Amino acid sequence: MEFQVDHAIAVLKRTPGALRALLEGLPEEWIRSNEGAGTWSAFDIVGHLIHGEETDWIPRLEIILEHGESRPFDPFDRFAQLEKNIGKDLEELLDRFEQLRKGNLHTLRRLDLTPAQLDRTGTHPELGRVTARQLLSTWVVHDLGHLAQVGRVMARVYTDQVGPWKAFTPILSRDA
Amino acid sequence: MEFQVDHAIAVLKRTPGALRALLEGLPEEWIRSNEGAGTWSAFDIVGHLIHGEETDWIPRLEIILEHGESRPFDPFDRFAQLEKNIGKDLEELLDRFEQLRKGNLHTLRRLDLTPAQLDRTGTHPELGRVTARQLLSTWVVHDLGHLAQVGRVMARVYTDQVGPWKAFTPILSRDA
Repeated sequence: MEFQVDHAIAVLKRTPGALRALLEGLPEEWIRSNEGAGTWSAFDIVGHLIHGEETDWIPRLEIILEHGESRPFDPFDRFAQLEKNIGKDLEELLDRFEQLRKGNLHTLRRLDLTPAQLDRTGTHPELGRVTARQLLSTWVVHDLGHLAQVGRVMARVYTDQVGPWKAFTPILSRDA
Repeated sequence: MEFQVDHAIAVLKRTPGALRALLEGLPEEWIRSNEGAGTWSAFDIVGHLIHGEETDWIPRLEIILEHGESRPFDPFDRFAQLEKNIGKDLEELLDRFEQLRKGNLHTLRRLDLTPAQLDRTGTHPELGRVTARQLLSTWVVHDLGHLAQVGRVMARVYTDQVGPWKAFTPILSRDA
């Protein structure tokens, strides 16, 4: 499938609602359980998505459009949300994610990027040269990857509960 | 986390809405793409969840409660939905899944299972002795596993689009 801005937006605009439909109002055990030390809960993952809205996708797109390859992106802190969200509740995070996403998609639509702009290149601090098109594609993949992660993390809360069915539930055992 | 019927229901009742929020109205490419020959699209996965509502979870629970281990479950056809849903659209499937799930959770609540009933055992045609509690836990894990699969299948539509970011998007490459 070729990258199209409107197809990317079709997914990006749905992620906050999908996470809300899945998570809002759930017992804390579902939301706060992780896969062990150093891993993330559904709560942490929503926090990470918020941090991406604040510092990653649209800010990096703007760097590409304004500076091209001359100004590398700021590194993305994958763990920033862990401290920042202590004491918050999930509803706050879901609201914030939805609101930030809405604003960022508004910016993206307003930019109305041409194919030439989508081909513009920037400098990723670790990966080197990347295009605006690759950045926007990655935004979508990042959403879907973390949605999958939420499903996996929650599924694993019941790892010991399924008994013999563990053999038929690859989400509980496969490499992740 | 110990198994609790009401905690299981908390997840099970949200799955249809989460899938609807994610999928309804998306361009067909997102819904109909799979991971290659013999794999499932998001559309196929929703069809599979419908088939589970019709033939797997509550029917098997009822076999356990009525017959214990003496009557093995009917085998579950993991591919039944592929032929059955040709010509249907995703909205039909989402509606059907929601409606069936609602009815099945109504049945589950009405049963108001005691701990002794949750400990009752049945016979799985391949796995042998399983408890009602394990069956209900697996129902939840099965939902979340397929939600994760939807995220993965959709993410992989953009495998070639992310360029160098493939190194940072494990959903595109890890064992699945």
